[in-house]
Amino acid sequence: MITWNNLDTLASYKGLFNLEKVNLKEAMSGESGAERVKKYSAPMAEGLAYNFAAKRVDGTILETLQKLADEAQLTEKFEALYNGEVINTGEKRRVLHHLTRGQLGNAVEADGVDKRAFYTEQQNKIADFAKKVHSGEITNAAGEKFTTVVQIGIGGSDLGPRAMYLALENWAKKNGLFKMEAKFISNVDPDDAAAVLASTDVAHAVFILVSKSGTTLETLTNESFVKDALKNAGLDPSRHMVAVTSETSPLAKSDDYLAAFFMDDYIGGRYSSTSAVGGAVLSLAFGPEVFAQFLDGAAAADRTAVKKDIWQNPAMLDALIGVYERNVLEYPSTAVLPYSQALSRFPAHLQQLDMESNGKSVNRFGDPIDYVTGPLIFGEPGTNGQHSFYQLLHQGTDIVPLQFIGFKKNQMDTDVVIQGSTSQQKLCANVAAQIMAFACGKEDENQNKNFEGGRPSSIVIGEQLTPGALGALLAHFENKVMFQGFLWNLNSFDQEGVQLGKVLAKRVLAHETDGALKEYSDLLNI
Amino acid sequence: MITWNNLDTLASYKGLFNLEKVNLKEAMSGESGAERVKKYSAPMAEGLAYNFAAKRVDGTILETLQKLADEAQLTEKFEALYNGEVINTGEKRRVLHHLTRGQLGNAVEADGVDKRAFYTEQQNKIADFAKKVHSGEITNAAGEKFTTVVQIGIGGSDLGPRAMYLALENWAKKNGLFKMEAKFISNVDPDDAAAVLASTDVAHAVFILVSKSGTTLETLTNESFVKDALKNAGLDPSRHMVAVTSETSPLAKSDDYLAAFFMDDYIGGRYSSTSAVGGAVLSLAFGPEVFAQFLDGAAAADRTAVKKDIWQNPAMLDALIGVYERNVLEYPSTAVLPYSQALSRFPAHLQQLDMESNGKSVNRFGDPIDYVTGPLIFGEPGTNGQHSFYQLLHQGTDIVPLQFIGFKKNQMDTDVVIQGSTSQQKLCANVAAQIMAFACGKEDENQNKNFEGGRPSSIVIGEQLTPGALGALLAHFENKVMFQGFLWNLNSFDQEGVQLGKVLAKRVLAHETDGALKEYSDLLNI
Repeated sequence: MITWNNLDTLASYKGLFNLEKVNLKEAMSGESGAERVKKYSAPMAEGLAYNFAAKRVDGTILETLQKLADEAQLTEKFEALYNGEVINTGEKRRVLHHLTRGQLGNAVEADGVDKRAFYTEQQNKIADFAKKVHSGEITNAAGEKFTTVVQIGIGGSDLGPRAMYLALENWAKKNGLFKMEAKFISNVDPDDAAAVLASTDVAHAVFILVSKSGTTLETLTNESFVKDALKNAGLDPSRHMVAVTSETSPLAKSDDYLAAFFMDDYIGGRYSSTSAVGGAVLSLAFGPEVFAQFLDGAAAADRTAVKKDIWQNPAMLDALIGVYERNVLEYPSTAVLPYSQALSRFPAHLQQLDMESNGKSVNRFGDPIDYVTGPLIFGEPGTNGQHSFYQLLHQGTDIVPLQFIGFKKNQMDTDVVIQGSTSQQKLCANVAAQIMAFACGKEDENQNKNFEGGRPSSIVIGEQLTPGALGALLAHFENKVMFQGFLWNLNSFDQEGVQLGKVLAKRVLAHETDGALKEYSDLLNI
Repeated sequence: MITWNNLDTLASYKGLFNLEKVNLKEAMSGESGAERVKKYSAPMAEGLAYNFAAKRVDGTILETLQKLADEAQLTEKFEALYNGEVINTGEKRRVLHHLTRGQLGNAVEADGVDKRAFYTEQQNKIADFAKKVHSGEITNAAGEKFTTVVQIGIGGSDLGPRAMYLALENWAKKNGLFKMEAKFISNVDPDDAAAVLASTDVAHAVFILVSKSGTTLETLTNESFVKDALKNAGLDPSRHMVAVTSETSPLAKSDDYLAAFFMDDYIGGRYSSTSAVGGAVLSLAFGPEVFAQFLDGAAAADRTAVKKDIWQNPAMLDALIGVYERNVLEYPSTAVLPYSQALSRFPAHLQQLDMESNGKSVNRFGDPIDYVTGPLIFGEPGTNGQHSFYQLLHQGTDIVPLQFIGFKKNQMDTDVVIQGSTSQQKLCANVAAQIMAFACGKEDENQNKNFEGGRPSSIVIGEQLTPGALGALLAHFENKVMFQGFLWNLNSFDQEGVQLGKVLAKRVLAHETDGALKEYSDLLNI
């Protein structure tokens, strides 16, 4: 029997405050540090590992975190979720994105169909469509092959798929699996669509319109931009556009599209990279086989997330340590720092995933809570960040926990030796060095050159950023955020906080405003 | 006579804590809110305006902030800076980036030359070089015109110039001023250089190597990548490369380069967009006239920054309000949210500018301080962010002050009307709506749909994002960060916090490690 309790009612949570804090500088120095790096590692799917040696935890704290996981029934709640319970209580919806990549528990029937079969069917439809585009069976009206795919979507229909595309673009090129270039139009700023269209050979482009409801204003506006561009080029838009939407949306049955692929209300936008939302663009760009490998990686990560032992469940462990940092150590933010240029937009995706899921002040029953929830998430790739905001991370007055990501091998197999080492070695040497610099610091009599240390981090280490590794990485963070939502007793799957702005913007456009809003509208010439 | 005192020794700072806090929700409601929007606006250069109606300030607080500005001698300190005093005490350097765009005070002589004349000379040399490239007087060995410019640099040699390029790319195209595409290589990750080079026609590309010292490891490594690519294409690298460096660097006099343009130790990397670091790439991309307009905008903003009246000095006012939010209201971060796709990387530049300048724990004399300093800075363009992390900004448990930026007109003059309004109107309606949603919130019996409000923001409003407006915007934030450094009594112009990581990375590459660092190195296969 599952009970949904606020975090601060749990005995093991209260117990955390009584435990001695870890002195990270001491713990990570000398032989003790070496032992921690060897021991504090949890295996992830696809050969990745979550190493948390440089977090402020020790045996006692980890035991209590295990108790907290048990007391909060984290894996039981995950089981309820993947078995189809209505976990999104606000919108009264199931939460089924795990089914887009595997079947963890019982078959889930909803809307009169088996949902795993439904998602697989959409995936197969997309694969079939993509193969026909690649083979030239589906072409433009002139019988010429499509060479570019343009995704039109915003939020989850943009950030995740874009980050995944960038993560695999060079890997696919290197491995002869690159099929079509992908571009993205998202912002309602008309310069976004205009710029992308100006650099796109629209006659050979297929456009994917992504909107679950079929009513997202930004996306409909940008669709209109695209249709104008196609018409101006003497082309028939319906020969160039596909829709990714829900079966009940106005887009679903329209003759305006070459094809329609379906998602549903059980897939939140920020959890949709493994659904048709990511599937269409990634299958067109890299082929359905690559997308399938990506899904397999995500499914493998999901299978580790069912385990009760925190040492075997890295997503749950990561979640627990994050809550310890947020609520006990009181760190308000986390930086995501991938040492991989291919993951340049991965932090932006995690920013949405995490902040939109757990940036809430009421629990899943709508009652205000008395503890802090989701942290602020930001990040840029290393080593770039080292030459930018790391100054504050090392010597600023606030402590920011860090999530590093690193791979032993690069994607493109091209490298140079300078000063006796390859660039890839330099990249890896830098991330190792940073972990230690943050953890242990370095004393200097000149206080300006003094590093206090005590700044915690963890690192996900992998062999290479392949489709499978990327899927595992994505699912790891999805599941981490889910577990943190369970701990904080939040509904991580709605986003009521985005509604008020929409309502007020409509009022501005209808010129139905007064007071300050009218003044701002005047200043902005609306 | 200037005295450099810690913030917490100043009477007006202490006075701030005794003043009644502003209830933003009340203040921004009804007629009071309308009055604030009209009144709480400070004119910026180039027709921009800094509107701070939705900040938690009132007449009394503003009066005290004026007193604080006077007591902290902010404009006197700025005067000392632009007149060439050694403000960067740690590195014992002057701070002269303002001279790259104008002469605010007395002539500054250093290294035996007038520095304004020196920067102007470099600018003229760059303009001359760019014109010759554009006219075809300088070509590749085959006598063909260069069509692409690739900047090789990291940190300040990358983020600022890249953000500025993206900000003006579409404006230049629209106005027939686009000369050459620009690309950027920064990361030591070998996949960064490999990917950029794979998509570049190197035979028609000119590469700008940017490193003040001539020793930045990432940049030298990437130079080697580029040289290999040129040689592999049967080309002579020295016909394709220019250097931007200091006169004393090993790059300065090398025959390996078509030309060398100089900066010096008085221009910090993050303040170098208006120096040769930004000048070379922007002049090649858009022509020297556009770069000159950009400098004029920055110079105009600098001229407002000398004024003692906070109502006439928006950079100083912005700085004071930021310190009030950070130290009195205790908000630890700030989001930068430009409603302009062209400013997509502007937040990443401000992140470096701000966090690297003021993320410090010791004052300018190297003594530890007892108050918090630089906040965490992050951001993405709107409306994209609305569909992402705004959930936390609206309903999360922490309050994050917001810096909006908006323009009445878009850059490309292309637009569509959907549901009775243009995209540009929708964009502007959204930013106006967001300010009010954050400030006033909206009560709802369903706590899940309740918005508490009380979340402060300011907005910079402009006519259009032109080169002049961009220069003014850039200089505004540079000067804001400078004034905040004065308030916190920091040296905002060094970055000792980046050194330790470099030292440890070298040790890893030399295999001179033990303990945890050796274990990490092993895990990463170094």
